[in-house]
Amino acid sequence: MLNVGFIGCGSIGRDHIERVRNTVAGGRVAGVFDVVDEAARKAVSDFEVDAKVYGSAQELIDDDAIDVVVVASRNDAHLEPILRCIEIGKNVLTEKPLTKTSEESRKIVDAEVAAGRRFVQVGFNRRYDPGYRRLKAIVESGEIGSLLLSNCRHYNAAPATSYYKTDDVILDTFIHEIDVMQWLFGENYAAIEMKIGKRNSLNPAPDLDEPQLAIVETESGAIITVEININCQYGYDIQCRLVGESGIVALPDPAMPEIRKNLAITREIDPSWTARFEESYNEEFKAFFQSVARTGGPAAIPTAWDGYIANITGEAALASLHDKRRVEINIPEKPDLYK
Amino acid sequence: MLNVGFIGCGSIGRDHIERVRNTVAGGRVAGVFDVVDEAARKAVSDFEVDAKVYGSAQELIDDDAIDVVVVASRNDAHLEPILRCIEIGKNVLTEKPLTKTSEESRKIVDAEVAAGRRFVQVGFNRRYDPGYRRLKAIVESGEIGSLLLSNCRHYNAAPATSYYKTDDVILDTFIHEIDVMQWLFGENYAAIEMKIGKRNSLNPAPDLDEPQLAIVETESGAIITVEININCQYGYDIQCRLVGESGIVALPDPAMPEIRKNLAITREIDPSWTARFEESYNEEFKAFFQSVARTGGPAAIPTAWDGYIANITGEAALASLHDKRRVEINIPEKPDLYK
Amino acid sequence: MLNVGFIGCGSIGRDHIERVRNTVAGGRVAGVFDVVDEAARKAVSDFEVDAKVYGSAQELIDDDAIDVVVVASRNDAHLEPILRCIEIGKNVLTEKPLTKTSEESRKIVDAEVAAGRRFVQVGFNRRYDPGYRRLKAIVESGEIGSLLLSNCRHYNAAPATSYYKTDDVILDTFIHEIDVMQWLFGENYAAIEMKIGKRNSLNPAPDLDEPQLAIVETESGAIITVEININCQYGYDIQCRLVGESGIVALPDPAMPEIRKNLAITREIDPSWTARFEESYNEEFKAFFQSVARTGGPAAIPTAWDGYIANITGEAALASLHDKRRVEINIPEKPDLYK
Amino acid sequence: MLNVGFIGCGSIGRDHIERVRNTVAGGRVAGVFDVVDEAARKAVSDFEVDAKVYGSAQELIDDDAIDVVVVASRNDAHLEPILRCIEIGKNVLTEKPLTKTSEESRKIVDAEVAAGRRFVQVGFNRRYDPGYRRLKAIVESGEIGSLLLSNCRHYNAAPATSYYKTDDVILDTFIHEIDVMQWLFGENYAAIEMKIGKRNSLNPAPDLDEPQLAIVETESGAIITVEININCQYGYDIQCRLVGESGIVALPDPAMPEIRKNLAITREIDPSWTARFEESYNEEFKAFFQSVARTGGPAAIPTAWDGYIANITGEAALASLHDKRRVEINIPEKPDLYK
Repeated sequence: MLNVGFIGCGSIGRDHIERVRNTVAGGRVAGVFDVVDEAARKAVSDFEVDAKVYGSAQELIDDDAIDVVVVASRNDAHLEPILRCIEIGKNVLTEKPLTKTSEESRKIVDAEVAAGRRFVQVGFNRRYDPGYRRLKAIVESGEIGSLLLSNCRHYNAAPATSYYKTDDVILDTFIHEIDVMQWLFGENYAAIEMKIGKRNSLNPAPDLDEPQLAIVETESGAIITVEININCQYGYDIQCRLVGESGIVALPDPAMPEIRKNLAITREIDPSWTARFEESYNEEFKAFFQSVARTGGPAAIPTAWDGYIANITGEAALASLHDKRRVEINIPEKPDLYK
Repeated sequence: MLNVGFIGCGSIGRDHIERVRNTVAGGRVAGVFDVVDEAARKAVSDFEVDAKVYGSAQELIDDDAIDVVVVASRNDAHLEPILRCIEIGKNVLTEKPLTKTSEESRKIVDAEVAAGRRFVQVGFNRRYDPGYRRLKAIVESGEIGSLLLSNCRHYNAAPATSYYKTDDVILDTFIHEIDVMQWLFGENYAAIEMKIGKRNSLNPAPDLDEPQLAIVETESGAIITVEININCQYGYDIQCRLVGESGIVALPDPAMPEIRKNLAITREIDPSWTARFEESYNEEFKAFFQSVARTGGPAAIPTAWDGYIANITGEAALASLHDKRRVEINIPEKPDLYK
Repeated sequence: MLNVGFIGCGSIGRDHIERVRNTVAGGRVAGVFDVVDEAARKAVSDFEVDAKVYGSAQELIDDDAIDVVVVASRNDAHLEPILRCIEIGKNVLTEKPLTKTSEESRKIVDAEVAAGRRFVQVGFNRRYDPGYRRLKAIVESGEIGSLLLSNCRHYNAAPATSYYKTDDVILDTFIHEIDVMQWLFGENYAAIEMKIGKRNSLNPAPDLDEPQLAIVETESGAIITVEININCQYGYDIQCRLVGESGIVALPDPAMPEIRKNLAITREIDPSWTARFEESYNEEFKAFFQSVARTGGPAAIPTAWDGYIANITGEAALASLHDKRRVEINIPEKPDLYK
Repeated sequence: MLNVGFIGCGSIGRDHIERVRNTVAGGRVAGVFDVVDEAARKAVSDFEVDAKVYGSAQELIDDDAIDVVVVASRNDAHLEPILRCIEIGKNVLTEKPLTKTSEESRKIVDAEVAAGRRFVQVGFNRRYDPGYRRLKAIVESGEIGSLLLSNCRHYNAAPATSYYKTDDVILDTFIHEIDVMQWLFGENYAAIEMKIGKRNSLNPAPDLDEPQLAIVETESGAIITVEININCQYGYDIQCRLVGESGIVALPDPAMPEIRKNLAITREIDPSWTARFEESYNEEFKAFFQSVARTGGPAAIPTAWDGYIANITGEAALASLHDKRRVEINIPEKPDLYK
């Protein structure tokens, strides 16, 4: 039973505290910290956990009573706690993105390389989604041959908040496809071009240009199109279709009862990501806890390197959005630690 | 180009006149008759056909200008015209049921046997439905092994008229499954038991007890359950699932676009049988015309024998409804003409 | 964190030990017992748990170090440990069936009634399956109206062992539908008739007559058909379709990627119940642990009463199998404790 | 009954002769011509039609015994016969593309405009496919709002012949999406960019670069991606998904029985376009015959204008393929005749 310390008690942080408290075996909510102290205390109270409230992230990290750390603070507050974890040799599961920039993420990679081992697991939870895992297994089986094309949909019912901006779409939304498609294709990206589609009249955010279409090329010449439509109105809909040389495979819709009523056959769509990816988060935490318990380190995927190259790709996507052109992506050589 | 004479210009008769006029190659609407003369004249006018209106069914049948006859009159007005067609050697496509009783239908069988050839094709249109035809092909391929079980649904949105009665369900509705399941299983029935389910509070017909459940046993011991729910409210829904020794196969839903809207994935359901079985009727007529043109006789299926044994089975179903017990079915030996 | 004692370390017992060890929050594997001592020791070793191996079920139950008990012994070894748990006031989650007979199960009901509270949760895991739970919610919402009919499939790829017998189908297999359908319909059963279908030539068990068809009537007159086909060859396939007055709803297939290859669209079918119902078992344990932690008693469903009336129904099914007739089911009045 | 003259008795020409002979009401195969005289005679013999074999296309067109003309000759032999039909005022249904070039097609448009009425119906058969028609109806109902995005697949199992070339993909394959998407979106295209994906190692044609990805922009800024994968190996697969402001709609797969066998749920995929689009061709001919019979002119869609602007778009696609850049599309003003 690992004693788990949580940094960040906002929405996703609370989800994870509740998860470790009630759902996933192997961990105990032992400590919490939030820059808003009241948020930390409220989490302790709401989830009825016997956990210490710390005065700073570092205090929590450094406490010997804490075995592993979960980072769920704001994107711009990931770097310091993660570096500290590496420094003192404590395993850490961090929400995505690893950091806000490839420059910051590179520091984490360098710290792990310097330490000679991995401490960081990045919360690209889709890699633990049963659907994506089956896609990966099917691709690896060779059953559909080498991958040539792919089309993905990342559709949200509506933007999270009215001040959502065009650039946010990359790091908050598209980053998931950036990571998971690189994993599925098993190769680096070579270039990306972002296109802005026709504006949805139901889009409430003046500074948010979308839908966006990403056209991504891999090193071997495969082409991935990703439709990012975060104001689709109809629900949360994540799709991925992989086209191989001899067949194709597609992510399933969630299993929902089929109702026949009023001249229609109907199945429900999830309104948001929570229900759709609940199981992937549980599996992600289970993998983290079991790996730490058995091997002393985090699960094999996703690594800090994965987080770093997702940042590089995201920055290319932002450059393409701003410059309205295809942007080449140059992924540095992967250190041995991540091979 | 065959000159076609139509007996019966009611709802289904008009459908067939329109079909021959506008849709299916090989026939010309040459003559019409209806006991209500005005109905015949209206059909000629509505569909702009150059057709003679006859004063009686026999006059139409006997006219040398008529090559083939289509019988779409009321169920109790099938026997005489069909016998006359056989008598003078004219091919006839009749709506189902062949006649109202097995006794009447036997006369038709006997007339064909006496004539030494077949003239009658019965309008069990499902045998020409692409879905059922594929089921038949799959069964015959041996792909799922010998059939053991089956479950069918015959669901109508609402009873056709408020004076619908319990017994009508057999000859007007269930008769379709009686025929098509015998064809799919390729063997005779041995027994049937009808059960009346819980009354639907939305059932508008006081003399109509339904839903009904038919439990049919074949000679080899396979069991077929048919849910007859003619007041299901949600649409016209025909299903058939066949369970073989090593696999199962099911009739598909009609192909309909999938809409995602308002937190739901939706496909339309046909409101009535017309859209669902349009293609089967077209194929039925095409088969009739082509067979007559090429061989001089009707298509190979369904025969008067099929119509006759459907009557026998329907009568056993009625006996079971009335006596609330399992009723054995004894199918006579099949004459060589139908083997 | 509850200390959990396990009675029975066979196949399903080991599954549950592994589940509490690695997957579900809230419990710790603290003790194990099996009539074959070696099986208990092997489970401790295989799953690397820090658990005491007890010399008898009662020793485990009576130990103050054990907070709650899980019974996963053979069906005929459920009664004594459960009664002992009730006697000393310890909560117990038992695998289904509650016991082998309604007479035994009645003793458990009587013991709880005498104690004035419930201690027993029965492992009818389907009540915790997300699909069945959604069906229940849809029924309760009134969205499809009062239930009239239902058709279920309980299909296993092959019988578990070659010595499987006709009667075993009831308590080991059909018992799941007996419980879950009573729950979904929300009313008692009134009668049952079992029919044996045509023998599958691929059935390896001489004393196993199947497929079986159960025709169950509820008190209000609704009819449920259950196809029990435990040698279907093609996979593990659990289906349930509920027919209401204004619509129908059906259990979904598990979410599986769709592959298009070799002129076919293909989705995988689970080979056995483990993958299909994994989540329901996890949820069942989570509900048990959380309820005990928060309320001091087991989850609200399924109760010992549910286990008892499932036995009554199962015995009626056996009588029908033996006597080849419809058998009435008389459910006694429900004690207040279970209302 | 229209007397139909056929120009071109190759593969698709024979399909149409057989269609008019056996399937679709309203026409009679009255005349045939093929540059290979033997091909014309063989068609007459194979389909047992009572038709005259003509010595030239013009002879057939000019014969008063011919009411309407069907052009199914090679793409480069469409222009002359169509112009002649317009010249003498005879209605003509031509296979797609209208001609090989926008310059040629413009001549047809100009001839119709000069004549002051339409004589030409272009065989973009998808407009008569029930699936596409339902998409159109749903779009026009406003049910999913204004269209923003679309993703299409045009997948063939294998290239038709080993000498297939990269450019052929546009006029022979992609032309269908060019027309049907313009119709569905109800607006002109503004730009196109073609991208060549990773080469399929199973591609047998050295001069055929594919899969191709088309990125098409409409005048209002909507983006359509079309995956053209004519060597997908697994079957003939046509998909179209339209993304509106409040919902999406997708073309259905053809209705095929679902088989469960060998741990898989399987539905068949059509190997080629014939089965998939059979009904659309029948409907196209039915519409042509009925419109000519009732109005004296061809059906309202697709017109010569549609054929012309498809050529313009196809030429932009070819320019993009050659120059590896986005190419703007300038559609001239539409003459009143086509509004």
